Order: sequence, then C-alpha cells, then structure tokens
Amino acid sequence: MKLIIGNKNYSSWSLRGWLAAKQSGLSFEELTVSLYGEDWEALKAKEGEFQPSAGKVPVLWDGDIVVWDSLAILEFLADRVGRDRFWPKDEAARAMARAMVAEMHSSYLPLRRACPMNIRARATGDVQLSDEVEADIVRILGLWAEARARFGKGGPFLFGTFSAADIFYAPIVSRFLTYGIGVPSFAQTYMQAVWEHDWMQQWIEASEAEEWTISQFEVVPGK
Amino acid sequence: MKLIIGNKNYSSWSLRGWLAAKQSGLSFEELTVSLYGEDWEALKAKEGEFQPSAGKVPVLWDGDIVVWDSLAILEFLADRVGRDRFWPKDEAARAMARAMVAEMHSSYLPLRRACPMNIRARATGDVQLSDEVEADIVRILGLWAEARARFGKGGPFLFGTFSAADIFYAPIVSRFLTYGIGVPSFAQTYMQAVWEHDWMQQWIEASEAEEWTISQFEVVPGK
Ligand SMILES: N[C@@H](CCC(=O)N[C@@H](CS)C(=O)NCC(=O)O)C(=O)O
Ligand SMILES: N[C@@H](CCC(=O)N[C@@H](CS)C(=O)NCC(=O)O)C(=O)O
Repeated sequence: MKLIIGNKNYSSWSLRGWLAAKQSGLSFEELTVSLYGEDWEALKAKEGEFQPSAGKVPVLWDGDIVVWDSLAILEFLADRVGRDRFWPKDEAARAMARAMVAEMHSSYLPLRRACPMNIRARATGDVQLSDEVEADIVRILGLWAEARARFGKGGPFLFGTFSAADIFYAPIVSRFLTYGIGVPSFAQTYMQAVWEHDWMQQWIEASEAEEWTISQFEVVPGK
Repeated sequence: MKLIIGNKNYSSWSLRGWLAAKQSGLSFEELTVSLYGEDWEALKAKEGEFQPSAGKVPVLWDGDIVVWDSLAILEFLADRVGRDRFWPKDEAARAMARAMVAEMHSSYLPLRRACPMNIRARATGDVQLSDEVEADIVRILGLWAEARARFGKGGPFLFGTFSAADIFYAPIVSRFLTYGIGVPSFAQTYMQAVWEHDWMQQWIEASEAEEWTISQFEVVPGK
C-alpha cells in the first residue's frame, strides 16, 4: 500500500489518514508531497497518482484500488483488519465515536480556517478569535468531556484506548497547542496523552525536520 | 428507534439519514421538525432531544443511544444489520463508494450554498452558476460516470443496486432537477432511477404535502 500525504507540519487530513494507516497495523509506504509546491503541481498533473481525489491528500493506493479522503481510508482499513481496531466495541460508545468523527469530518470550518494546523509553531501572545471560532472550541471541549466521562474509563483517550475518535481530533489537539487555547484540566490531560503517543511523536519529529514553509498557514502573532 | 428530521422539502441531510433508516429494514418512528420554525427553537431548547447534535438534523435515538449526523447514522445502522446492506460487496467498488460518500459529506460547499435542496421547485429559466459551482457539478458527473462504468453492471444505481452512494447523492439528483442542470444521458438515466425509487417517491410526496416555506431556500428564478 502507498499513502500519499501532504507536508506533515500543515496537512491535518493527511495526519488523520496516516494515523489510520498506523492503527491498521498494515505496512505501507508513504509519499510526502509539499502542498502547493512544484511537486504538488506535478503530481496533480500526473493522471492516476492522485487525480482520483480531485487533487487533495491523503490518498491511499493498494494495487488498482484507490481510496481518497481520510475517513474513507480509515473505513477501508477497518474493512480489512476489523472494525474493533478503530472503533469502540460498546455500541453506545461506538455510536458516539461515529457521530464525533462525522462531525469533525464535516464541521468546524470557522476553527479550521482561522487556525490552520501548524505543528511546529506556537503563538507568542493572545490570539484573537471570533465568536464562531470560540463556539467551535466550546463544542469540541463539550464532546471531549462527555466522551471521557461516559466512555473513557479504560485509558487516557476519548473512548479509553486510542480509537478513530482520537485520530480525527489529533489535529485539533495540535491547533489548541499552537494557538494557546486555554482548556480545562481534563482536556490538558487528554491532549498530553495524544501528543505523547508514539505515532504523534514520530509525526511531530518529521514535521520539525521539514524545510517547507507555507506563509498563509503561519501563525498570526498574538496581540 | 426514533429519527428526528427537518422539512422533507428542504433538508438534504435528513433525506440521507431517512433513506439510511429505510435501507436498514428496521422499523423507526419519524419526527419532522420545520427547520428554523417555532418547533425548531422549542426542540433545540429541549435538552436531550437533539441538543447532542448541536441543533442539527438528522438525529437518531435508540433508547439511550443517540447518533447525530447522517453518515454516522448510516454506519450505526450498518453495524446493526450488516455492512453489505449499505456498501458494495466488492472491495474495489466499496473503496470507491466510501470515498464518494466521504467526499459528498465534506465537500461541494459552493453547490450546496448556491443550490439549496428544494424538492418541489423547478427553475423557470437559465440559472446562472459560478465557476466553482460548475466545477462541483463536473466533479460529481465524473464520479457518477466512473462508478457506473466500472461497477454499475448489476442495476441502474451507481454501484448497481441501491447503496450508500445513492443515498448520499440523492439530494444532488434533486438539486440537478430543481435547477435544471443539463447532464449527459447516462446521468439522466441514473437520476430517473433514483427519482422513481419507492422511498424517494414517498419522500417527494411528503415534501409536496408540506405547507412550510423557507424563503431563503426558494429558487432564484432563471434569467
Ligand atoms: N475530506 C478530505 C479533505 C482533504 C483535504 O482538504 N486535504 C487538504 C490538505 S490537509 C488538501 O489536499 N488541500 C489541497 C487543495 O484543496 O487543493 C479528507 O478527509 O481527506
Ligand atoms: N454533517 C451533518 C449535517 C447536518 C446539517 O447541516 N443539517 C441541516 C439540515 S439539512 C441543519 O440541521 N441545519 C440547521 C442548522 O445548521 O442550524 C449530517 O451529515 O447530518
């Protein structure tokens, strides 16, 4: 299998696809392409590589099979290795995890636009956020709190052990750290567990080693 | 089970959730709430009814279990009744269906904004569409063409028999009809199969019987 991803520092959907590939336990090759760089244009032009995805990453190839979109990649891999590797076993927990993942997949545009993922960066002062962005943050913290309280007994992650829900919210953890979003202590503990996860650490190190910068995703300094 | 949905005429995500509930073969009660109407505000305020969804529809309740978001509802039901009722059996077909559904779930904002679903309405002249909306239309037609050509042998739907992919693109079929979007003949044939599907016909009849109108979703007359 080959997974095509964008820059590790900036590409939040790539991080989700990559964590899903790790979680599957299957071996895969990765190909990192700098978003909007020259390789990107070359790759976009090269029919068959990631043209099926309308020029977005991540894309997973397995022989003739191509799967684009982070959530479809996760489900494709769950079809291969079994749902229980990705989703909570308890039906009520799984229902909530599925809803949270779907909400992440389709929502929070204000937060996603105002606070692009930038693993390496840290805001140096107070970041000014609109009411809509604040509402997204409050909503996410509410979902985290409820998942942890109802289903989080078995470990430090949203549903105890590391699951699809953590994979989908991992880039939010990164954003909260980058933009210095103040969160209650249960959320700090959760975020630390995500940040210290081996695969996150591997991704973070690779982000730090990347030399590309994309100016429109660089953090607006705090005021 | 109880499914909370918005107006049948306008609520595209509700249509997807409802078709998924039909496809499950399980019996369910439905509760229709007029989007943005008085009941809507009352229901939003009533903690526990659809508050878990951040005030969006559809929401599925099953005893204590609550699932919001159309895609999560579909997957929850597939967990109950078996994946094969919703997704193609062939792995390559299923991979493409999953990617197409995920793309529908997260994309096409220009088209969704410019052309809100309005089952009853028909544009009376040429509708002016931006380049972005045209690009969404071309992308969707390309995906339909490829699915039909590669995997559509067993029936008139995208992957042959009626599947999650048709459920997710059904509101697009409605939009193409409402706004008079010109499409190639393979797409006309596909759209007709969706439109004539029993469940669609039930939904359409119920839409026509609704007396609510939402002015911002009414079709801009063609120029
Ligand atoms: N819904 C898609 C979103 C993919 C996406 O937007 N990826 C971004 C990078 S994080 C991208 O490729 N952007 C480039 C572009 O839009 O041209 C998924 O879940 O994979
Ligand atoms: N991603 C959600 C989208 C749900 C959604 O946006 N539903 C619309 C009606 S079609 C809604 O409830 N809008 C009301 C609002 O946003 O306040 C899903 O797939 O169910």
